[in-house]
Amino acid sequence: MFDAPYLLFLGDAPDQLAAKMAQGIISWRPEVAAGQYRMAGCQADMGIRDMTVPEAVQAGVKTLVIGVVNRGGIISDAWKSVLIEALEAGLDIASGLHNHLCDDAELVAAAEANGCSLYDVRVPTMNYPIANGKKRTGKRCLAVGTDCSVGKMYTALAMDREMKKQGRKSTFRATGQCGILIEGKGVPLDAVVADFMAGAVEYLTPDNDADHWDMIEGQGSLFHASYSGVTMALVHGGQPDALILCHEPTRPHMRGLPDYQLPSLQDLREVALRLARVVNPACEVVGISINTQHLNEEEALAYLAKVEEEMGLPTVDPFRQSAARLIDALP
Amino acid sequence: MFDAPYLLFLGDAPDQLAAKMAQGIISWRPEVAAGQYRMAGCQADMGIRDMTVPEAVQAGVKTLVIGVVNRGGIISDAWKSVLIEALEAGLDIASGLHNHLCDDAELVAAAEANGCSLYDVRVPTMNYPIANGKKRTGKRCLAVGTDCSVGKMYTALAMDREMKKQGRKSTFRATGQCGILIEGKGVPLDAVVADFMAGAVEYLTPDNDADHWDMIEGQGSLFHASYSGVTMALVHGGQPDALILCHEPTRPHMRGLPDYQLPSLQDLREVALRLARVVNPACEVVGISINTQHLNEEEALAYLAKVEEEMGLPTVDPFRQSAARLIDALP
Repeated sequence: MFDAPYLLFLGDAPDQLAAKMAQGIISWRPEVAAGQYRMAGCQADMGIRDMTVPEAVQAGVKTLVIGVVNRGGIISDAWKSVLIEALEAGLDIASGLHNHLCDDAELVAAAEANGCSLYDVRVPTMNYPIANGKKRTGKRCLAVGTDCSVGKMYTALAMDREMKKQGRKSTFRATGQCGILIEGKGVPLDAVVADFMAGAVEYLTPDNDADHWDMIEGQGSLFHASYSGVTMALVHGGQPDALILCHEPTRPHMRGLPDYQLPSLQDLREVALRLARVVNPACEVVGISINTQHLNEEEALAYLAKVEEEMGLPTVDPFRQSAARLIDALP
Repeated sequence: MFDAPYLLFLGDAPDQLAAKMAQGIISWRPEVAAGQYRMAGCQADMGIRDMTVPEAVQAGVKTLVIGVVNRGGIISDAWKSVLIEALEAGLDIASGLHNHLCDDAELVAAAEANGCSLYDVRVPTMNYPIANGKKRTGKRCLAVGTDCSVGKMYTALAMDREMKKQGRKSTFRATGQCGILIEGKGVPLDAVVADFMAGAVEYLTPDNDADHWDMIEGQGSLFHASYSGVTMALVHGGQPDALILCHEPTRPHMRGLPDYQLPSLQDLREVALRLARVVNPACEVVGISINTQHLNEEEALAYLAKVEEEMGLPTVDPFRQSAARLIDALP
């Protein structure tokens, strides 16, 4: 989609958390980040070389990637002067911001004048087909969650990394803006028109070698009233051979839905498997990924052991531990 | 959305089937159709008064509704001259065609010059909210199918008509282009962006009187690999109190998916009910609607009796019989 190496733009990030998209790239594809650009007052730091725009050009950077969330849903004048400087120096710009680069007349004009491209990764770039449900070669693993934002992307990335570490064939398949910025390509599934969602997932996970695994980034939850349709399209378009159940044990209610309790892992297993088997009767739930960030080490290990016992499936926190046991559980 | 009465444009329809959108309006809202416009060679006939454009204007017509499918995905010059005549006479135009009126420069120019509107009912006309899952007042019934095109729209329309006949409060809620043309408003759900599908359904079926029923037009099927995400959004956005299972018993495979068998009605009942109860624990499957158009009377009655016995639920063909038993089964 867009070319590496990147200059990670951290803007005037008020804290490290505001730069979580840059952090995602640094965590998962550090090799593509040539440097970072920090404006006056920036409180985030990726621990890589600070660069001016001319220094980035000299270092071979192709794309300035906006790695920080903007405030108030606008691209400030201070940001814009840097972005225009980058375009005038011949860099492309990639962004996962809610407000699109392509809607900003000044940026569009500067990009055109300098022959550069603006990549809004939240905007679908092609017309996806209607899904045909045909069986594809190769293997696919999908992370499904009891809720949104419980670690599905992290789980897929960690499994992909572990596969590669073991010398096995694997590709992370990004379906959201953060994953797309990390991988450099993917499908912004929540922005695809309803009729084409499952087709977009089929397009993303095409025929492949028999021993190749797609590690598909999940979205939403089958139990989330706002986004379950997107999850359903992933289950039916992705034709998973293996499902990983993802859960965050301290959440008081479904994200954004105070009236809704999280389903149990048993509920998720039953419903996800039944739906997945519509398109792939051989699909299995093979493991569980728990996000234990809000538990201390002792609590986390006890919780993981309890779930593993109850569910009879390998249960890990791939951040605290490793994704190796999930890989070992793949059919 | 657009104003009645209508002039039903049948164009140069090669047969009655090509005018099925006009037929839908005549079947379900005959009172809005003031007349029909048939071009030379038109083989369809709705049995209502033929009108020229000036006659339609004189009869008080507000909107020309394209009630026929075009051939080859283009709006022919022959059609266009009639449509432009209508716009110049002050009529609005409504269309459910795949190719949009608003993409045709001549039609757009003629509409603007005459202060008329072009309504492409396949195009969402507003920004729908993200679903919030909040419990709404009033009751909702959703038709879910073992497959696409098994009679879900027909079932919802027939139930709505029966409710009104009985003097009860009911609204048909259209979610596809044909239903929208019939009702004059609705949500073209398969054209809505993924993140907003369930929110669009919530918007379509708002708070209402405690004894009012929304009869929601279903789309796709939870078991259809291409469109299940749209169905899921209906189940979770619609918060149904009652589900009607819809089925066509002679279909050899899922529509458009030769490798997929239809699920059983038992499968549909279990999966749809489990998913619906995520948002409405009181939801019940209350009846079954069978499309028996490909069976003779004897076969049809025997099949309906067999399903009713097996499933323990009122089972009717609302076209061959009536929807009254489905209404009686509502909680």
